[in-house]
Amino acid sequence: MSEIRSLSRRDLLALIGATAGPGAMTMAMSSLGLAGESSYRAAPNLSGAPRGVRVLVLGAGLAGLVTAYELRKAGYEVEVLEYNSRVGGRNWTLRGGDVYTELGGERQTVAFDQGLYFNPGPWRIPYHHYAILDYCRKFGVALEPFVQVNHNAFVHSSKALDGRPVRYREVAADFQGHVAELLAKSLGQSKLDQAVDKEDKEILIEALRNWGALDEELRYRASFASSMRRGFDKPLGGGVDPFPTVSKPLALEDILRPGLWQALLPGSLQLFQTTLFQPVGGMDQISKAFYRELGDIVRFDAKVVAIRQDEREARVAYEDLRARGEVREIAADWVVCTIPLSILSQIDFDASDALKAGVAAVPYGASVKVGLQFKRRFWEEDDLIFGGVTTTDLPIHQIGYPNSEFLGRGKGVLLGAYVFGSPALEYTSIPAAERVRRSVSLGARIHRQYPAEFENGVAVAWHRAPFALGCAGLWSDAARAEHYKNVAEIDGRLVLAGEHVSLLPAWQEGAVLSALDAVARLHKRILEKSEHVAAKH
Amino acid sequence: MSEIRSLSRRDLLALIGATAGPGAMTMAMSSLGLAGESSYRAAPNLSGAPRGVRVLVLGAGLAGLVTAYELRKAGYEVEVLEYNSRVGGRNWTLRGGDVYTELGGERQTVAFDQGLYFNPGPWRIPYHHYAILDYCRKFGVALEPFVQVNHNAFVHSSKALDGRPVRYREVAADFQGHVAELLAKSLGQSKLDQAVDKEDKEILIEALRNWGALDEELRYRASFASSMRRGFDKPLGGGVDPFPTVSKPLALEDILRPGLWQALLPGSLQLFQTTLFQPVGGMDQISKAFYRELGDIVRFDAKVVAIRQDEREARVAYEDLRARGEVREIAADWVVCTIPLSILSQIDFDASDALKAGVAAVPYGASVKVGLQFKRRFWEEDDLIFGGVTTTDLPIHQIGYPNSEFLGRGKGVLLGAYVFGSPALEYTSIPAAERVRRSVSLGARIHRQYPAEFENGVAVAWHRAPFALGCAGLWSDAARAEHYKNVAEIDGRLVLAGEHVSLLPAWQEGAVLSALDAVARLHKRILEKSEHVAAKH
Repeated sequence: MSEIRSLSRRDLLALIGATAGPGAMTMAMSSLGLAGESSYRAAPNLSGAPRGVRVLVLGAGLAGLVTAYELRKAGYEVEVLEYNSRVGGRNWTLRGGDVYTELGGERQTVAFDQGLYFNPGPWRIPYHHYAILDYCRKFGVALEPFVQVNHNAFVHSSKALDGRPVRYREVAADFQGHVAELLAKSLGQSKLDQAVDKEDKEILIEALRNWGALDEELRYRASFASSMRRGFDKPLGGGVDPFPTVSKPLALEDILRPGLWQALLPGSLQLFQTTLFQPVGGMDQISKAFYRELGDIVRFDAKVVAIRQDEREARVAYEDLRARGEVREIAADWVVCTIPLSILSQIDFDASDALKAGVAAVPYGASVKVGLQFKRRFWEEDDLIFGGVTTTDLPIHQIGYPNSEFLGRGKGVLLGAYVFGSPALEYTSIPAAERVRRSVSLGARIHRQYPAEFENGVAVAWHRAPFALGCAGLWSDAARAEHYKNVAEIDGRLVLAGEHVSLLPAWQEGAVLSALDAVARLHKRILEKSEHVAAKH
Repeated sequence: MSEIRSLSRRDLLALIGATAGPGAMTMAMSSLGLAGESSYRAAPNLSGAPRGVRVLVLGAGLAGLVTAYELRKAGYEVEVLEYNSRVGGRNWTLRGGDVYTELGGERQTVAFDQGLYFNPGPWRIPYHHYAILDYCRKFGVALEPFVQVNHNAFVHSSKALDGRPVRYREVAADFQGHVAELLAKSLGQSKLDQAVDKEDKEILIEALRNWGALDEELRYRASFASSMRRGFDKPLGGGVDPFPTVSKPLALEDILRPGLWQALLPGSLQLFQTTLFQPVGGMDQISKAFYRELGDIVRFDAKVVAIRQDEREARVAYEDLRARGEVREIAADWVVCTIPLSILSQIDFDASDALKAGVAAVPYGASVKVGLQFKRRFWEEDDLIFGGVTTTDLPIHQIGYPNSEFLGRGKGVLLGAYVFGSPALEYTSIPAAERVRRSVSLGARIHRQYPAEFENGVAVAWHRAPFALGCAGLWSDAARAEHYKNVAEIDGRLVLAGEHVSLLPAWQEGAVLSALDAVARLHKRILEKSEHVAAKH
């Protein structure tokens, strides 16, 4: 029986999302939904800033850091308020010794060995997200390839093949082969004469034969050609007995019914196409690089509680968490607020009704990531999996393999679960330590080495992260149509920036682009005002 | 008009090969031809070697290095004769200051800046070529990903789209989309009821809709979904105007007629699937690591001129090129000869008629690689191409982008041409300096920045390399059936190893596996003989 037909369209979208990260979910969405390519060309030219104009930036995540960096460089007087004791926001890397306390007070101390790390937030940068890449380039943040599609990683369904994981290459080659065979035979029967020019038909059949590894009779079957894609049972060798044994393809129905084909979808998206990157040593190398540029203009442990504005100026009140929550106030001419809408909506702030309605209209996504340290890199040594992602219908959804120290003899940290939507809420019905244990016991159904090799882990649930309350702003199409413009516009002395003010939600590029656009517009507004003032005098 | 139909099957194979490297050519071959996965599991156990047994290894390429390393570790008395002044053979990296003299005496001095390099021989290691990877692991040779398929690299045909290069992602998404549309419509018309179970048909249509980015009416057209794969005309952004413009797919005929679809073939092969590797700093890091292990047992500049063997021992005569070609002789109990058959066939050697016939039966492939140094990494800065390969029907066939120092501000070395078969012979009808100039002028039709940014280059033609006389042994199926076994068997005191004694020709893994198999059999033979001798006494 088909598993897929019992799923609603929404379930299907969730499923696709679950195998690929938030961005992939949009693939099947018909209208402007989420993520894609970046519109970045170059950082804005902010010349001519008037002297003495004060800009207060709320939040030192990527949007806030970009804002502060660009405005300060342009000559503005910039200060930044940050709730955490570090910069970065969701641009974040956990290492041994780090302590993290989630909503409700559960506190985890990361026990990774030295040199190991885990990115609980963003973990990859598409090559076309060039705004953030350009900052890496500018600040000398070293980048290395991030492997998304790994043909030797697993595709696993508890409902298929008695729960035996297969390799991505097998699903990819076999789906392609069966599709090629069906279409080539259909063309051979001249059923599609209307759709394909007769002149092209012969070429298309030849193309399908090569592309699908079909035999002379246009069949996709166990053969040298198909084994060259899906792998041999006994591989080619050297010396006296180098002769291989070909492998038997999966039946089309075994790919279709348990939904194994869905594992092929993310890799087609430009978001996950080669070449993706990760910063060497952890994603937070980027925010740390910004911080080096900014110096001491960031006030940490500052929890914003009110944003006031009037004709004369803006004033932001914050609790100084280093001084038992004593409330302090900073005045500024302009405020760039990069606080997630999930948090901002709980803060007392002065703005138009339109902006307030927009801030209230955007729900935030639930998401859990679990990092697991193992004694040895068994996925490389035993399974020949070097980077990339395994997908499964188990509640862990994904296993992500590290993309550095390849073939190293040391330990390694896996992404042991990456879950979002309602499965993420389920995952957080248990304490963090149990989430880690659950990830190990579930992952053991794919990697039998898990129990023997596991050492320690950490679980970050984004909807329970006090500084974010969600992984990203999940605009509905209706909310976007009604509110997006109001959220993006400068509202008096206040302008918002962050991934939530972009069409690239959950992606760092969205945060960077929205910040660049906000500073460009703010600068223009300030110049206009200052000309206006000059003209009046 | 179709370009493809005017090509013979052999031309087509050559064309596929030309866009992918020698390994890809086999994809369309029906019988046991070439390359694939490795059969390696672990290095052989060579315990119990009798004392004082002398093994002479001819050639210090990878096969010779592996042979010498394993036999020496087992306790044999090993010496190596090497024609060049360096180890590695085709495992070779060129850097500034290196001098290379090809057949005929043309001498090139490499002018690359410090830190830049070019691998004229092998340049990538598939993840499943685990014998060579295991040596890298053992010797601590750092590896980094090699990007083969880069969705943002170009696919270029001088006969298509007025010679405008398109991105790989456009060809990949559009071919997949058109194929999905044709098959989905065919299924909708119930033409394939016999081939597909009715139960599966609905799932297959849903799969094709997602996989091919089809719309609700199963059409592949300009849409948000298709642009998420092929790219937008105006990308998604942040701030007040984040809205994208979708892009228009290529027509199926524009992909089929000029053969653009052929660019999609190599990436399907396990040989080019993720994750591929390259040694950090150049392919010769591997042979250098072996050499560190071996120490001073390699005699360089030693040109083997005769291999003698009788009941008592083997004797190899060589010209000492450091002593004006004076002929010297070394005696040994056994000889492992890794000299390419193209060279060995010209040497006077004692062996059975069967082995001699085999050695004579294997032609060697012609191949040219050109390395080009440019002032800046314009392919990254201007074109957002990070690693991977551009394919073209121009005589350069491929452009390979460096897979390290991503987003670096320095200079870079491209693979400016990679040609084999008869086009490689044409490429060497002109001197090396002209091959370099030709690569620049042809490449400029794809990268307009070439002429302004070019600095210097080097061209290596393998069929004109004195130590190889070809890029690899190209067994025909007929020759393999008749001679392969005889070439692989121990022949008296002589056994051959090298990529030519494998089903992985042109791949380093073939050399390593053949050497491992040769040493295992040789060790067994030696043990048998020594037991035989012991029994007689």
